Formats: sequence, C-alpha cells, structure tokens
Amino acid sequence: MVGGGQLARMTHEAGIPLGIKFKLLSDTPQDSAAQVVSDVVIGDYRDLDTLRAFARGCDVITFDHEHVPTEHLRALEAEGIPVRPGPDALVHAQDKGAMRAKLDAIGVPCPRHRIVSDPADVERFAGEGGGDGSDGFPVILKTVRGGYDGKGVWLVRSSKEAAEPFLAGVPVLAEEKVPFVRELAANVVRSPHGQAVAYPIVESVQVDGVCDTVIAPAPDLSDELSTHAQQLALRIADELGVVGHLAVELFEVRDADGAPAVLVNELAMRPHNSGHWTQDGAITSQFANHVRAVLDLPLGDPRPRARWTVMANVLGGDYPDMYAAYLHCMARDPQLKIHMYGKDVKPGRKVGHVNTYGDDLADVRERAAHAAGYLRGTITE
Amino acid sequence: MVGGGQLARMTHEAGIPLGIKFKLLSDTPQDSAAQVVSDVVIGDYRDLDTLRAFARGCDVITFDHEHVPTEHLRALEAEGIPVRPGPDALVHAQDKGAMRAKLDAIGVPCPRHRIVSDPADVERFAGEGGGDGSDGFPVILKTVRGGYDGKGVWLVRSSKEAAEPFLAGVPVLAEEKVPFVRELAANVVRSPHGQAVAYPIVESVQVDGVCDTVIAPAPDLSDELSTHAQQLALRIADELGVVGHLAVELFEVRDADGAPAVLVNELAMRPHNSGHWTQDGAITSQFANHVRAVLDLPLGDPRPRARWTVMANVLGGDYPDMYAAYLHCMARDPQLKIHMYGKDVKPGRKVGHVNTYGDDLADVRERAAHAAGYLRGTITE
Repeated sequence: MVGGGQLARMTHEAGIPLGIKFKLLSDTPQDSAAQVVSDVVIGDYRDLDTLRAFARGCDVITFDHEHVPTEHLRALEAEGIPVRPGPDALVHAQDKGAMRAKLDAIGVPCPRHRIVSDPADVERFAGEGGGDGSDGFPVILKTVRGGYDGKGVWLVRSSKEAAEPFLAGVPVLAEEKVPFVRELAANVVRSPHGQAVAYPIVESVQVDGVCDTVIAPAPDLSDELSTHAQQLALRIADELGVVGHLAVELFEVRDADGAPAVLVNELAMRPHNSGHWTQDGAITSQFANHVRAVLDLPLGDPRPRARWTVMANVLGGDYPDMYAAYLHCMARDPQLKIHMYGKDVKPGRKVGHVNTYGDDLADVRERAAHAAGYLRGTITE
Repeated sequence: MVGGGQLARMTHEAGIPLGIKFKLLSDTPQDSAAQVVSDVVIGDYRDLDTLRAFARGCDVITFDHEHVPTEHLRALEAEGIPVRPGPDALVHAQDKGAMRAKLDAIGVPCPRHRIVSDPADVERFAGEGGGDGSDGFPVILKTVRGGYDGKGVWLVRSSKEAAEPFLAGVPVLAEEKVPFVRELAANVVRSPHGQAVAYPIVESVQVDGVCDTVIAPAPDLSDELSTHAQQLALRIADELGVVGHLAVELFEVRDADGAPAVLVNELAMRPHNSGHWTQDGAITSQFANHVRAVLDLPLGDPRPRARWTVMANVLGGDYPDMYAAYLHCMARDPQLKIHMYGKDVKPGRKVGHVNTYGDDLADVRERAAHAAGYLRGTITE
C-alpha cells in the first residue's frame, strides 16, 4: 500500500487476520501506518524509481491516498505490476475535471459545473445559473487536483473574490452551490472480476468543511432513494472500472417537483471516512473488503450488525496526550469503540474516530459525540 | 509482549485502534506476530539480560505464553518493571503443582490429585481412588511445567505405563481421570485495580487433546451453573492476583446427587483459544480487554453480539498454501471470519481459526466446521 496515513494503518489491521503480507511505502517512519507495520519502505511516492523498487515483489499495489501521479501508475502497469484501482479509474478521483466529464458522459446527476479560465469566466458561469433572477453567486471553485478536506476549495460571492484559485496554475472547476438538504455517502466495493457489494447509505454531517459525524444508515431515507443511491454508486464503480473501495459523496436535494434526489459531490477510490462505521457496525469492514477486492478474493457481507451505528471524528484539540482521556471515556461507556491513529495532536487535525452502536439513535449519537468531544477536550465532564 | 506467537499477533491487531506502541520480543523474525509488528526485538526469553534490554522503555510487560522463568519475572519486578500478570500470579499457570495447591487452599473444586514420586507411587495414588471396587486406573500424569496442547500429559492404565513422565526429572502430578460430561471454559479479565469482567461460559470440544471447536455460549447450560462458573473464575482471578486475561478450563461433571457441577482442569493467564470467538462474537474481544487490563484502563463490555458464535480451529493439513481455499470459503459464506496466523503449515499444527455467528446454532456450527475442514483440506467440496 502506498501512503502511510490512517487508512493504511486500518487496512493493515484488517489484513492481519487474512494472513496476507502487507508492505508499506511511507513518507516517514513516524507516519500513522508505519508505526504498526513490519515491512515499511521509506520513500517519496512522487518518484517513479522509488515506486518501482517498492513494487518489486508485491502481487498488487493499492493506495492510502489519490496523490500518486497518474503517469507513474501507467508506467507501473505497463511494466506488468497490477495497480488497483488502476490509473484509468483512479484519474477520476485525482482530477475533478475528469470526474465531472465522465459522470456527465454516463448520465450521472451532478451539480451544474464547468471548467473556468479566469475571474471574468467565473462571473459568466454564475450568470448562466442566474435564471432565477439572482446573480448566480455564490459559486464554488475547486482546483481539479490536490484538494482534500476543504483544502483547494473556495466559496466565492463575486468575481472579485475569485482570483486566488487561479494562482496555482491548475485548472479550476466552477460548481453551483447546491441548496442541499443534507450530505449522504454511498460506499461500494468492487473486485477485478466485477463482483460488487454496497453498504447502507449513510448521512455525513460536516462541520467547517470536515466530516464530523456519520450515521449509518441515514435516518429517514426512503427505501427508494436508498436503493437508487446504491445503484448509482455501483454503476459508477462499474463504468469507471474501479477496483477496491469507492466512496461516492452525495448531496440530497429536492427536484423540480419537490421529490428527494441525489447529486454526486465527490469520489474517493480507497477506504473513506464515511465508511469507518463499518469497522464495528458491519459484518465486513470497508478495510477488509478493500483488501479482498484488491486481491480478487470474494467479498464479505456488507450488511449492518446493529440497528444504528454512529462514527464521530476525533480532532486534535488542546491536549497533546489523549491517552489520559481514555480513563473517562472507557469507564463511561464500556461499549465505546476507539480508533486512534497514533498521530501527533495538532488543533483541528483528524487524529482518530470513535464508533458507537445500538437500537436508540439519540443515545448512540450522544455517546459518540461525548467521547469525540471529551477526547478532543471540548467536553470536560 | 514477550513471545511471537499468534496470541501476540492478535493482541497487536487489537491494540492498533488504541494507538498504543506495541513492542515484541520474538524468537525469530518469522514468528507469527513478528511478521506484522513494527517494533520487534529478536531474542531468547529465557535469558534475563535479553529480557532486561527488551523491557527498557516499556511501560508494562505481558506475555504470549507461560514459559518465561518465574525467577526472571521476579528480577524484572524487583528492578521496577511492571510485569502483568506478575510472577506471584503467573506461577499458577506455569506450575500445575502450585496451581493445584493454591486452588485446594482457596476451596476451588478440582479433580482428585497429588504429586507422585515414581511409578509405585502412581499405583498407590490410583488405589486411593479405587474405593468403587476398581483399581483406580486410568490415571492422568502431568509434568508440572512445560506442557501444552496435550504435550507433557499421559494417560496411564497401570504403573507399568507410568515410567516415561518421570524421565524429565520434573515433578509429576497425578490426577484422576474425571468422567466429565463435557468441557467448558470460563474467560475473565481483571485489571490491576481489581475491575473484572466475565465472558459467557463456553463449551470447548476437544479432538485428540487439542481444542477443535468452541461454542459460545455453552448450549443447555443452566443460568445457575453458568453464573457459578463465572463467579468461580472471578474468584480465582482475585485470589491469585491475576492481571489480564484468565482462562479457566473446566470439566462439567455430575455430583453425588446427579446435579451438574464443575471442576477446574487448567488455568491460562493470557488470551486463550477458548476466547477467540470474542473477536467477532463479543462487544469487546479478549485481546482488546487483555490490553486494557494490562494498561490499567477501564475494561470493555464482554457481552455477546450474536445469539451464537462458534470458533473452529484450522489445523495444518496436506495443503501448504491455504490461500487458495479462501476463494471457496469466502464465496460460500460471505459472513465467515477467517483468522490466519501466518504460520508454515505442518500437519496437525494450529495455523488459524474461523468464527461464525448467527441465530441458528446448527447452521453456525456447520459453517464453522465446513470452513475449518476446507482450509485444512479434509473437506473438498
């Protein structure tokens, strides 16, 4: 696995029971996954020779993140090294322009969007959507590559605010600001021979552009829209040739007739924050199924084990030592599942998450929120 | 953790989510746990200087097996290194003579037993139990140290067969062969400040002296005997000062009035084969709770997550590559949980286990037995 973040850490954890040999390419020995894996190569994933040397002796390569240059993946593939997901699929998670073009081509509903060339073009894009008598602002601008967790994304209210995104020299995608009801996510896993499984659709609650809480399954979601969203994600996985885990971030909106519908926000082709609940809430976790897919093994059952499962992210706060908070959290809730990443605490940084499950959603949410807040230091009782 | 076997491997797996730093003392880099842990010291646990050097920088030491010499543990403790379980407790899992003496002293029911000095003494021991008109044979002989999985244990039918156990020069314990109804196990976990949790009592089915299947909870066990067995194990943990996981292997017998009762067979102070079902069948696994106990963190909920969970051991068979069998097993049963240890396959060697769970015991047992048999190669369809 390329990339030493928490997704690799948790993928290793899920791979141990299968007896597979897990090799990691990590930036530093201190990275989250490098702390817990025995076979670690330290190196730069942007360097093709480093990737080549790392890949030697691997049966298959997969990823903790989307940042390996697409041309390097093509070079590895050309040399006969299985890369899963492959570059032809992964490019759609790397390049938001390529993603939107492909989703348009296969008829998947997206927010109104187009590549824009400069601030004046942003004003034209806004005007194209101003048919309701407004000026069409605010508009969302995204660099097509390099963004994550709200980085590389701008909300602009006029062309005057639209200069910064163009400074990096990367193509900029403009999107309408969708008046969504809430955010959902569809998580599916697909193997090379085309078997696929779909997890229940979840609700993702964002705070300041960062995922705060995930509720599985999404409350008050009709069976019809749930099935539609799962089928949409399965179709995207198939059309794009995804191998491994695919997360489809969705906006739930109301269509012209006021009926619930979904638009695709983002794609991620790796285990994803919206699937962390599966570690304790599903029969087979997203990490275990990602491993199985990448190795072309039959996939595990994605169904939930509890009526409700809630995941809450733990962000870094004022306390550098979160360990002391374990005493309170574990004593208060013996059913709490803590997942820490071994990262240095920095304010606002994702350093872990907690999962809770049970029959009473209000109780399950309260327990997750309390533990995440206490670990961060924003709750002290 | 001292010892690189599968118990250390699975303890590391359970420790990853807690963000703890796990250091391993392993005989070789190929050992089960050494394959998946980053911080591994290769060395001999029988050498005190090796143990001392390993312990440097550890907050606490715990064990994958009972074989570290008791005097070395006392030396480490005397130097201020927390050893959990400590030598005063662990000696009862290391030395069957010490175990029986202690259980007698605290009034825990055991099979009739005493230390015997030679074959003639074995005949006297048999005769002491021959009040029913029989000659008192067969008798079980055990070396008080060094046995496991049927090794170091002999069933003798006369004093003529009783020579071999005395050859090693280790004290020999004689025990009556108990006419048990079945074997049960009580698994409890205790922390340094005395908090303790008890898992449901399980039935352990042995084949050729090796654990084959564990059923959780034990079927057709009265609430009364179940609670009694849990309390017995909790009392042993407390009286012996156990820290961490304690497995109490039990014989279910009928007392003089024909009522169900239990006798203590063996003790193990570490995660135990009879607790492997907890990985997929309990809210908190035995491995997670062992880690929490050893670190003096509040313990997790030991209650089951399913009506029935069945664990079946996978023994080495004719196929050196068990991986090929994954295709069949995973496709046949998407809910199957496989736990392989990364060990070389040798006939009869424990190389992994599987867990299944559900509402229908017959179905859950069939699935576990099928998968274990298929992985071993004794079932081919």
